[in-house]
Amino acid sequence: MTSSERVKRLKESLVKRNSDAILIADEKNIYYFTEFLGGFRLLVPSDGENTLFVHSVNYEAAKNTVKNASVELIKVGERADVKILSEIKGHGFKSLGFDRLSAAEYLRMKDALKEVKMNPLDDVIWSLRKVKDDDELTLIKRAAELTSLGMKRGLEIIRPGLGEWEIAAEIEYEMRRMGSSGTAFDTIVCSGSDSAYPHGGSGERVIRGGEFVVIDIGAKHRGYCADMTRTIVVGEPSWRQKHMQETVKEAQKAAVKNVKHNVKAREVDGAARKVIAERGYGEYFVHSLGHGVGLDVHEPPKVGPTSEDVLLAGNIITIEPGIYIPGFGGVRVEDTFLITEDGATKLTADL
Amino acid sequence: MTSSERVKRLKESLVKRNSDAILIADEKNIYYFTEFLGGFRLLVPSDGENTLFVHSVNYEAAKNTVKNASVELIKVGERADVKILSEIKGHGFKSLGFDRLSAAEYLRMKDALKEVKMNPLDDVIWSLRKVKDDDELTLIKRAAELTSLGMKRGLEIIRPGLGEWEIAAEIEYEMRRMGSSGTAFDTIVCSGSDSAYPHGGSGERVIRGGEFVVIDIGAKHRGYCADMTRTIVVGEPSWRQKHMQETVKEAQKAAVKNVKHNVKAREVDGAARKVIAERGYGEYFVHSLGHGVGLDVHEPPKVGPTSEDVLLAGNIITIEPGIYIPGFGGVRVEDTFLITEDGATKLTADL
Repeated sequence: MTSSERVKRLKESLVKRNSDAILIADEKNIYYFTEFLGGFRLLVPSDGENTLFVHSVNYEAAKNTVKNASVELIKVGERADVKILSEIKGHGFKSLGFDRLSAAEYLRMKDALKEVKMNPLDDVIWSLRKVKDDDELTLIKRAAELTSLGMKRGLEIIRPGLGEWEIAAEIEYEMRRMGSSGTAFDTIVCSGSDSAYPHGGSGERVIRGGEFVVIDIGAKHRGYCADMTRTIVVGEPSWRQKHMQETVKEAQKAAVKNVKHNVKAREVDGAARKVIAERGYGEYFVHSLGHGVGLDVHEPPKVGPTSEDVLLAGNIITIEPGIYIPGFGGVRVEDTFLITEDGATKLTADL
Repeated sequence: MTSSERVKRLKESLVKRNSDAILIADEKNIYYFTEFLGGFRLLVPSDGENTLFVHSVNYEAAKNTVKNASVELIKVGERADVKILSEIKGHGFKSLGFDRLSAAEYLRMKDALKEVKMNPLDDVIWSLRKVKDDDELTLIKRAAELTSLGMKRGLEIIRPGLGEWEIAAEIEYEMRRMGSSGTAFDTIVCSGSDSAYPHGGSGERVIRGGEFVVIDIGAKHRGYCADMTRTIVVGEPSWRQKHMQETVKEAQKAAVKNVKHNVKAREVDGAARKVIAERGYGEYFVHSLGHGVGLDVHEPPKVGPTSEDVLLAGNIITIEPGIYIPGFGGVRVEDTFLITEDGATKLTADL
């Protein structure tokens, strides 16, 4: 699907939702529709030409890159809000959707656009973005490859005495060197009892033998993210450590077995959660099973116990069960998957 | 200033602004007041105990770290919004400030809290955060040192034939290895005609002799950021390139000469802008002179031509004039400065 096809579908959705236009503020949404990173606001009427407002700092780049919109310069010193409000008023819209305004900005706009009905319509954009097209799949697959290369490097070099930050350095270096355009999120290398904190500690600890080390990383490729976690023990794992590791792997397998087009996300979460509970660790799986991945590393669909989402072919999600025992340590295994008609394809590597 | 002193000042501000409480959503604001990264919402009444709402994924870490608030668990599957609204209703607040709610969340809350006056009060927090205390200064100085080490490495290794991404890899590796906890923003290594785009291109270009290369980087230390840019020509610069480089350096000097406690930020911007305009590049300086730096890499005070901010001792700002000539290339020089009573102290290195 080309970006102009994405815009066409957005306009069709606006008509269905009785909205005369949508004002898009999220930089990644703007990128999705215009192929340009660095736009300020994108105004998409249900009918007629789209306008991308760009600050002077990004204007030259925008002129050469932006698709599907005319580029409107906000000069240094010019008030962006005044300019955008004037454009909106000029159209005479009766209703205006938005994706992600701050409450303060919403209140200022609402004050100026008294007659205009303003509604959050980010779900319209998410319903497009969460089903990836072929161009997006190619980019996410590359991001997943780069992530796997980083993980491979991390697992190769890890040894007692290295600092968590040194392992993070090597992993990020490998991903960058191979072409990653940065990290999808702050790299987690988290060891010992700190590994019981799913979102990692400070990264200032030194690795010791016999401890869990959680490595949770993501590369980025042309804006698209991937996400992957492995948990290892440097040296010989104890019986309890092995049991936790195996349980988490079994939970991931159970989830994968249950996942395909048209399945409820919370049922997939439930399949993994059941395995963990049956082996006595139920209270220690303290987060959702996964999340959508794309231009954002955390995006729809939700994959958790209360999710209302139904998984669709073309969704990219993580499946990442974990067990975290305070004072002892934690285990998480995570891969990035493409949902298909009859299952899921793992995009990150077998490591 | 300890974090409990910060909370005390926040409560004093709430009283002054006739607000019974503030609901804090920004993760960095929560960190500023509780020393914990990973909180969901922090409720601070003008009088009485503070409550930090934390999802189960971060609960164990929170219990061991959070200062100045009692920790309230949001269990897996529990609805955070319901829990928080119930707490707010229980207090019987007549007015509730907030720092950064989304419009959608604001509308939902407003609907549930009809009697409560809700107002954005993020300026109250920024007026605290923008004047750094000694603890913060120590951390930002370290972030600036790490950034300078990265820049030193980048300038050492750069040569024709290297990819922009390879230079980024080496710089980030050096910063990480020395203890940086990630990057403050996506590293920019941008060369040739792409350097005319202040926010960089894709980073997929190969360095050639005789071209501008803009290197714009930032390390992070325990949440605090620094920001630094150098622009070099690999090989012998042309007369025009030299003239642009010298002009930008002179503009930075002029700004530094004019900066101190109680000076208007727009006057500092003006001092730099004047130098660039006098040398014939006025139309090519297409962004603000700088920005505040702290837990966010872009934060108040604003340092631009329309800024209403007055600089105060304890502010940390960047001073980063630039000249960007479409089709030819761009130059930017940027350092991170601490504003003092009678001037400014440069925190990034002479490189």
